[in-house]
Amino acid sequence: MAQQGLNELSAVEVTRGVAAGRFTCEDVTRACLARVEAREDTVGAWAHIDPDQAITQAGALDAAGPTGPLRGATVGVKDIIDTFDMPTGMGSPIYDGWRPLADASCVGLSRAAGAVILGKTVTCEFAGRTPGRTSNPLDATRTPGGSSSGSGAAVADCMVHLAFGTQTAGSVLRPSAYCGIVGYKPTFNTLNRAGIKFAAESLDTIGLHARTVADIDLFAAALTGRGTMGARPADTPPAIGLCRTPMWDKAAPSSRAAFEDAAARLGQAGCPVRDFILPESFDGLEAARNTLNDVERWRVMAHEWARARDGLSPELQIILERGGKTPHADYLTALALAEDCRARMTGLFDGLDVILAPSANDEAPVGLDWTGDPAFQGLWTTLHAPAITLPTHQGANGMPVGIQLIGRRYEDTRLLADADWVLNRLGAWR
Amino acid sequence: MAQQGLNELSAVEVTRGVAAGRFTCEDVTRACLARVEAREDTVGAWAHIDPDQAITQAGALDAAGPTGPLRGATVGVKDIIDTFDMPTGMGSPIYDGWRPLADASCVGLSRAAGAVILGKTVTCEFAGRTPGRTSNPLDATRTPGGSSSGSGAAVADCMVHLAFGTQTAGSVLRPSAYCGIVGYKPTFNTLNRAGIKFAAESLDTIGLHARTVADIDLFAAALTGRGTMGARPADTPPAIGLCRTPMWDKAAPSSRAAFEDAAARLGQAGCPVRDFILPESFDGLEAARNTLNDVERWRVMAHEWARARDGLSPELQIILERGGKTPHADYLTALALAEDCRARMTGLFDGLDVILAPSANDEAPVGLDWTGDPAFQGLWTTLHAPAITLPTHQGANGMPVGIQLIGRRYEDTRLLADADWVLNRLGAWR
Repeated sequence: MAQQGLNELSAVEVTRGVAAGRFTCEDVTRACLARVEAREDTVGAWAHIDPDQAITQAGALDAAGPTGPLRGATVGVKDIIDTFDMPTGMGSPIYDGWRPLADASCVGLSRAAGAVILGKTVTCEFAGRTPGRTSNPLDATRTPGGSSSGSGAAVADCMVHLAFGTQTAGSVLRPSAYCGIVGYKPTFNTLNRAGIKFAAESLDTIGLHARTVADIDLFAAALTGRGTMGARPADTPPAIGLCRTPMWDKAAPSSRAAFEDAAARLGQAGCPVRDFILPESFDGLEAARNTLNDVERWRVMAHEWARARDGLSPELQIILERGGKTPHADYLTALALAEDCRARMTGLFDGLDVILAPSANDEAPVGLDWTGDPAFQGLWTTLHAPAITLPTHQGANGMPVGIQLIGRRYEDTRLLADADWVLNRLGAWR
Repeated sequence: MAQQGLNELSAVEVTRGVAAGRFTCEDVTRACLARVEAREDTVGAWAHIDPDQAITQAGALDAAGPTGPLRGATVGVKDIIDTFDMPTGMGSPIYDGWRPLADASCVGLSRAAGAVILGKTVTCEFAGRTPGRTSNPLDATRTPGGSSSGSGAAVADCMVHLAFGTQTAGSVLRPSAYCGIVGYKPTFNTLNRAGIKFAAESLDTIGLHARTVADIDLFAAALTGRGTMGARPADTPPAIGLCRTPMWDKAAPSSRAAFEDAAARLGQAGCPVRDFILPESFDGLEAARNTLNDVERWRVMAHEWARARDGLSPELQIILERGGKTPHADYLTALALAEDCRARMTGLFDGLDVILAPSANDEAPVGLDWTGDPAFQGLWTTLHAPAITLPTHQGANGMPVGIQLIGRRYEDTRLLADADWVLNRLGAWR
C-alpha cells in the first residue's frame, strides 16, 4: 500500500502528528491544496479557495505553537456560513462576492481550536434544491447530493479532512451517503447557528462531514468543549431498532439490501435487534416538514423576493410563493405536531440504543441537475434527533450506499460511540 | 384636548387614515420626524436616523398605492437587526457603520406590508447589559430599561408607532414596562429570526413595542399573515391565574401593589381568579437561563473574542469567559430542563386563560448605567411562552408600573384578545 498523503490521513491522525512534531500545519495544508489543484477541475467542490490565504493560516498556527484540539486539520465551510476573510456567496448571484464582517460561530470556534479554514464549499442555492457545479468524486456523471454538495465531495475526495454542512431536510447526510463518507447531524441546537443564512429556522441544523466516526467526534468535541466519546466495549453490542420508515416503498433495491444486510449482520454480531415502527401520528411529519420549510423560507427571503427576485431560481420562487400563501394556522399546526413527536420520540426508544434506517433511497443518481430525494433524511431532521450516516455498503452500480443510525436527543456522544462500534463490525463499503 | 399629531395616533388609526386618503404616508413620516427632531437630544433613542431616507420610503409608498396592512405606519428597528439600507451597529464599536447586504426577515416583511422603517434604535451592546445613551422619555434621569432601550423609548415618546426589540431575558417587556407602553414577546420561533445578531440562540425572541394592544396585534398579524385577533366579548371575563413567581421577594412595593390591585379589580370585574404556583422543578429555570445565556453568548462571539476583544465591554468579557468555562454537560442539562418545563407548562393552565405576573420588579430605576433587573421577564422567556406587559399602574415615584400576562404557547391571538380585555377594564396608568 502506498504511503498516505497528509491530506488522506484522518483528522485525528493529522492533529496527533502535528502535536508530535512529525509534520507542520503548513505541510498538511499544502498536501490538501495539492489535491485540490489536481482534482478541482473534475470535482468542482469549491466556491472560494485561496491557497496563499490557507498557507498563511497554517503558518500562523505553526508559529503560535499549541492551540486546540483541531490544530492542523483542514476544514471546508459550506458557502452559506459566514467567514470574515472569505466571500460568502450562498450559491446565489445575489450574494456574489459578499463579505460578512464576522465568522459564524462554528467557524470562529474551529479557528480557535486550531483548524485551517481551507475555503468555502459549493452549496445549492440558499441551501435548497438548485445545485451548483459539483460532481460526485467517485463518478463525475453523478450528483454528489446536496445541498452541502461541495462539503461532501471535498471530504470524500481527500481535499480536506473535515467540513461543515447544514441540513434542513437531508443536506448533510445525503451528500455524505452519496459520496461514501460519514455525515453527522447533531441534536438540534447543540451546534450554534449564529452566522448561517437560515433556510428554515426551526429545522436548520449544522452538520459535520468526515471520513471516520472518530473524526466526527473530534470535530464535535472541539466545537462544544465536551470530551471525546468513550469507546463502546467490543463485547457489549448496542440494541438496535430496525426502522424501515413510512417511506420504505421509496427505497430502491440497493438501499433495501444495505439495510437488511446490516440488520442481519448486526444481529449475528450479538446486537439485540427488533423492528421499530413509528406511531401513526408520525406519518404527518413529512407534510409538516414541507410546511415549515415553505413558510420559513418565504419569511427569510422577504428582502430578496422584494428587491432581487430575478436573481432567484424559478424552482425557489415556486417554493417561496407557496410558503407565502400558506395560512399561519397551518404553520402553527405543523410546529405543534413536530414538537409533539419530538417529545414522544425519546420514550419510544424503550431500551434500544440506536435506530437503524436507510440513509437515502438509493445510490447517487446520474446527472447533476437533481441532488436526490431527501425523504429518508428529512424525517429525522424534523424530529431534531441526532443522526449519522455510515458508508457501509455498495449499490448495484458500484456506488456507496449508507446506513443511518439515529440516537436520542442530547445523547450525541452515545450515538457516535455506537456508530463507531457498528462501522467497525460492518466494515467500510470498499 | 388638543388634536393628536399623526405621530401620536395608533398604528391602527394611521393605517386606516392612509387607506381612506385622509393623510399620506409622507405626512405621517414627517410628523414622526418632527417629534424626533424635537426630542432626540433628550431621549437619545436612535442609533441611526436619516430623515431624507425615511421620507423617500414614505413617498414611494404614497406613489405605489395600496400595499399591505402596515401602510403608512412607522417602525423603529433595534440596532442588532439587519437593514440593507441603514447601518447595523449592534451597540458595539466593533460593528460601527457595518452594512449588511439584506434586511432581516422581520424588516423585509414589514416593508412588504407597507411600513416605513424610520431608523435604527439604540440597543445595549449585543442586546446585553451594557447600555447605550438612551434615557427614559418620562424622566431623563431614569433608565428606559434595556436591551431594546431605544425601541421602548421611541414608541413611548411618540417618535414612531411601532418598534422591534429582541428578548433573551427581559429586553422587550422591561423597557416597555419602564416606559409605560405595551410590549409583547410572542411564542418562541413564531416571528422569524433570520437577520438578527444572536445573543443566545435558544432564548432570543423578536418582540414588538406599541402603545395599544390592537397595534401589537396589527403588527404581529402583518408579520405572519394571520388575521387580527377577535375581540373577547365584554361579558365573558378571562380566568386568571395569579403567579407571584419564585422571585416575589424581589418585587418592590410598587410592583406588588400593581399586581394585587390588578388581581382584586379583575376579580371584581367577574374574572375567575385563583393562585397559580409553578411546580418546584421550575425553580431551576433561572439558573438554567443563565447557563444557556452564558454558553450561547460565548459561542456566538468566538470571532469577536479572538479578533476584537478590546472592543468588548469588560462586563461582556466576564460573561463570555464564564460561558467558555461552562461544561457542555451543564449546557445540555439546562437545555433539557427548559424543554421539560416548556412541555409541562401548557397543561398547568388547567382551565385558566392567562397568567398574571409582575412585569418588572419596580419602576424604572434612577441612573442610566443599569437597565434594571430582568428576573420577572426571564422566567417566561425561558419557557418560550407568549407574554405581554400592559401599562396599567403608577408607582411611588409617579413612573409607570406594568402587569404581565402570559399565555399558552402558540395561542398568541388568544393572549392578545385577553390582554385587550384586561387593559380595557383596568385602564391605562395615567
